[in-house]
Amino acid sequence: MAKDYKLEENATGRLVPTTINGEKAVPYQGVGKYKPTGKKTAPPIATCADYPDDGNKVVGNLKTALLKAGIKDGMTISTHHHFRNGDFVTNAIFDAAAKIGVKDLRWFPSASFPCHAPIIEHLKSGVVHHIEGSMNGPLGEFASKGKMKGMGVLRSHGGRYQAVQDGEVHIDIAVIAAPTADPFGNANGLYGESACGLLGFALADSQYADRVIVVTDHLIDFPCYPWQIQGNYVDYVVVMDKIGDPEKIISGTTRITRSPDRLLIARMAAQFLRDAGIMRDGFSFQAGAGGTSLAFVDYLSRFMREANVKARFVRGGSTEFLAEMLEEGLTDYILDGQTFDLKGIESMREHPNHVDTSPFTSYNYHGKGMFATMVDAAILGATEVDVNFNGNVVSHSDGMLLHGIGGWQNTLFSGCTILTVPTFRNRIPILVDEVTTLTGPGELIDVVVTERGIAINPERKDLIKAIKGSDLPIRPITELKEEAEEICGGKPGKPNLGSRVIAAIKWVDGTVIDAVRQVLD
Amino acid sequence: MAKDYKLEENATGRLVPTTINGEKAVPYQGVGKYKPTGKKTAPPIATCADYPDDGNKVVGNLKTALLKAGIKDGMTISTHHHFRNGDFVTNAIFDAAAKIGVKDLRWFPSASFPCHAPIIEHLKSGVVHHIEGSMNGPLGEFASKGKMKGMGVLRSHGGRYQAVQDGEVHIDIAVIAAPTADPFGNANGLYGESACGLLGFALADSQYADRVIVVTDHLIDFPCYPWQIQGNYVDYVVVMDKIGDPEKIISGTTRITRSPDRLLIARMAAQFLRDAGIMRDGFSFQAGAGGTSLAFVDYLSRFMREANVKARFVRGGSTEFLAEMLEEGLTDYILDGQTFDLKGIESMREHPNHVDTSPFTSYNYHGKGMFATMVDAAILGATEVDVNFNGNVVSHSDGMLLHGIGGWQNTLFSGCTILTVPTFRNRIPILVDEVTTLTGPGELIDVVVTERGIAINPERKDLIKAIKGSDLPIRPITELKEEAEEICGGKPGKPNLGSRVIAAIKWVDGTVIDAVRQVLD
Repeated sequence: MAKDYKLEENATGRLVPTTINGEKAVPYQGVGKYKPTGKKTAPPIATCADYPDDGNKVVGNLKTALLKAGIKDGMTISTHHHFRNGDFVTNAIFDAAAKIGVKDLRWFPSASFPCHAPIIEHLKSGVVHHIEGSMNGPLGEFASKGKMKGMGVLRSHGGRYQAVQDGEVHIDIAVIAAPTADPFGNANGLYGESACGLLGFALADSQYADRVIVVTDHLIDFPCYPWQIQGNYVDYVVVMDKIGDPEKIISGTTRITRSPDRLLIARMAAQFLRDAGIMRDGFSFQAGAGGTSLAFVDYLSRFMREANVKARFVRGGSTEFLAEMLEEGLTDYILDGQTFDLKGIESMREHPNHVDTSPFTSYNYHGKGMFATMVDAAILGATEVDVNFNGNVVSHSDGMLLHGIGGWQNTLFSGCTILTVPTFRNRIPILVDEVTTLTGPGELIDVVVTERGIAINPERKDLIKAIKGSDLPIRPITELKEEAEEICGGKPGKPNLGSRVIAAIKWVDGTVIDAVRQVLD
Repeated sequence: MAKDYKLEENATGRLVPTTINGEKAVPYQGVGKYKPTGKKTAPPIATCADYPDDGNKVVGNLKTALLKAGIKDGMTISTHHHFRNGDFVTNAIFDAAAKIGVKDLRWFPSASFPCHAPIIEHLKSGVVHHIEGSMNGPLGEFASKGKMKGMGVLRSHGGRYQAVQDGEVHIDIAVIAAPTADPFGNANGLYGESACGLLGFALADSQYADRVIVVTDHLIDFPCYPWQIQGNYVDYVVVMDKIGDPEKIISGTTRITRSPDRLLIARMAAQFLRDAGIMRDGFSFQAGAGGTSLAFVDYLSRFMREANVKARFVRGGSTEFLAEMLEEGLTDYILDGQTFDLKGIESMREHPNHVDTSPFTSYNYHGKGMFATMVDAAILGATEVDVNFNGNVVSHSDGMLLHGIGGWQNTLFSGCTILTVPTFRNRIPILVDEVTTLTGPGELIDVVVTERGIAINPERKDLIKAIKGSDLPIRPITELKEEAEEICGGKPGKPNLGSRVIAAIKWVDGTVIDAVRQVLD
């Protein structure tokens, strides 16, 4: 396949494409260096004269809705990933598109999952040209092996909002799977069999797409409230028998890790916040839903109780652990971007201070501020961290693109960003000389907590000073890296990469921070 | 003063200006006839790099904020009217502007009140060029007498949202008075000394203005939730000692009329809904906060209890009467556009089904539908109604422009729009041959309820049929009009008008439905 792009060195020295699928791309210039110009994008002006007075926008089926929305070759169709690996809607969309006979669609999901493997057939047949969005599992593998026609583009949750808002990605048709909706198109994720909590990842799509289709399996009388998605943005409503598999949408419960190493990492991360004085009355933190994160929340809660300290807010992905903090009064608010378990959904439904947020409020770097910078500490994972504190979350050291960025880049803007990682996995070091794919620049990563000690970014002299006197094992990151190499018998092997760029990694401001290359067999 | 506009006949035969203050204006073409083209407007793309990481946007005072926002000659400054006649912020803005020394500002309030009489000095001195927005009381009189330099423009709540969204009015600086806010600019009207309930009239301003300033007298820690105004739209936050007079912002209680005539009108309007079969399980209605409306709600509640009927939703302006309906279970929801009394605020704060709405959700005619068309019945007032069922709400029969449009035009889109009016006021007939100022076209006005009988628009054959068998006095509107003329000793006197157009009346789609002329002494 002929290359249709040129490469240019960005501010980190990485070679990145200057055109992506025929559109101009700006190389990464450094944190806060790229200044956008111009105005936000905007959808066409509508008129109520074209919509039914009784507010009933229900049409017969998804195919009808796509036809009414004017689906055509080359259009961009967006979906959200609040249903994670239990989504039934996306495959139905592209099956319908195939039946209609359109080609070269751009699928713009907020993320894709293994359940979307059937899209591979549509990529092969030409119904879908390429995917812009996280490609977890089989789709990532398909792309990594150079089989996708177009170039993939990975963005953070905030970067996706920014790209839509700025007009970098024009959505022709947004399809929003909604656990509950009314005929007007007001929708939420709180109720119904497919309840997923909230629908924030589809917010930009509703606001900026030319046409918006809501698909639900739980249609209720107007008004569907809360209207996390506002019907005033919606063109058509489709009722399907089942829009998702509840068990794969949400886990019954989220589980704390049982690994002694990970428990140790979680405990040290919590202790770091305590000993560095970050855990103080009115503070805030963000932690995810992985087993280590849950253990971290559990340890931190204990420290908070001991010290009689209360947080002003915690940020989810919410789990039963955060919900219990709220119930117990350990935090005034949960500001939640997605719910991970049943207790999280119940809490969001029932507790007035369990607040649904969106990539607009929390993560949009091209806004007038964002919540992410106000968070005192964020606890995150990574697939690799290098000696300059650069982080990778999208690929493995063999070069395979197997994970999405999620909110990871966005949360790096917290006051103290902590990566909790084992020094190695499957006898492959996680601490490396240089990350395979640069997803987050080291200047935003402050602390790396491993089972063998804690490394603090030398730029954060304030943290180094604050942690003095703690019994935590503070060590240089190079030492930790070398220890990992000793255990594993050397550095990770060099990946077998081709020259072709199969995906671009965007930074939060829309610039290209790195490129992912084809993995050769 | 030389005329800087031409006049053209619109679809109703009224002569309207085709330019307003130098900008092109489209004559009214009929309900649903004007189709907008193009895209919504959009503000400049911002970047978090320009905003403080700690989210603290507080600046010293209003003057500093205006200067930082880049206030310049000829700019448009917007305010909201949720504080009604108790607003302290607007006068402070234009006093500060005068001190800064800028001229020819366009003041774009969602409405102005007698408390804004000091703006007259700024209109005289040239700080303010003209007002676009309702001009209640002294400002209306000032404009009516031809003393305002520019032409006034009156819009409905929905029309104001439409005008901002469509780019018809570009707001340079929005100033949003907020009863509670955090340093990031998240704000609501629910808490604090100046609590006004909600802030929906400022929503478009926050979304579309180039710069947004939040002014509060009750600054709380982030997050201020609910964020009726989202801090992500806000540039600066200013703290003032007192932003309003609580007693004039909100009334302690709203009172039912004691006038026997008005009680009769209210009772007949309620009975009309019952007897015409509109009052049925799952129905909806909207009524305002005037004494007649309150009495209507009271009567209707009784009929609903008797018939064991429950509404799906009622639309406010909310009062204790609506709040009690919700508490009693006579309605599932209140979808509220503004709160009129303390009980209304408390209900919105405490009751999960007392929902704050905005001109975007409820009234924006250039949206993908609006709530207004889904309301089964709306009960409204008017200053005049003519024999073709046309309505006037902005001027008196002497031609004086003394009232705003409010949501009146927007609510005309309900399934059954009922004007409750006495046949005469102060011995001047309200029922006339032709309204002085056309504010709403007769085709949208279905029923006129007076103390002397009920007139049904002959176009609504369905209603005429439905009401058969009721003991209500259904009469031709001409008969009612003639009776009023008999009692008053003739038709209203001809107003003494000059030729100059002092204000344009916009329809909900941005076209000009009528022009208001100068009143000569």
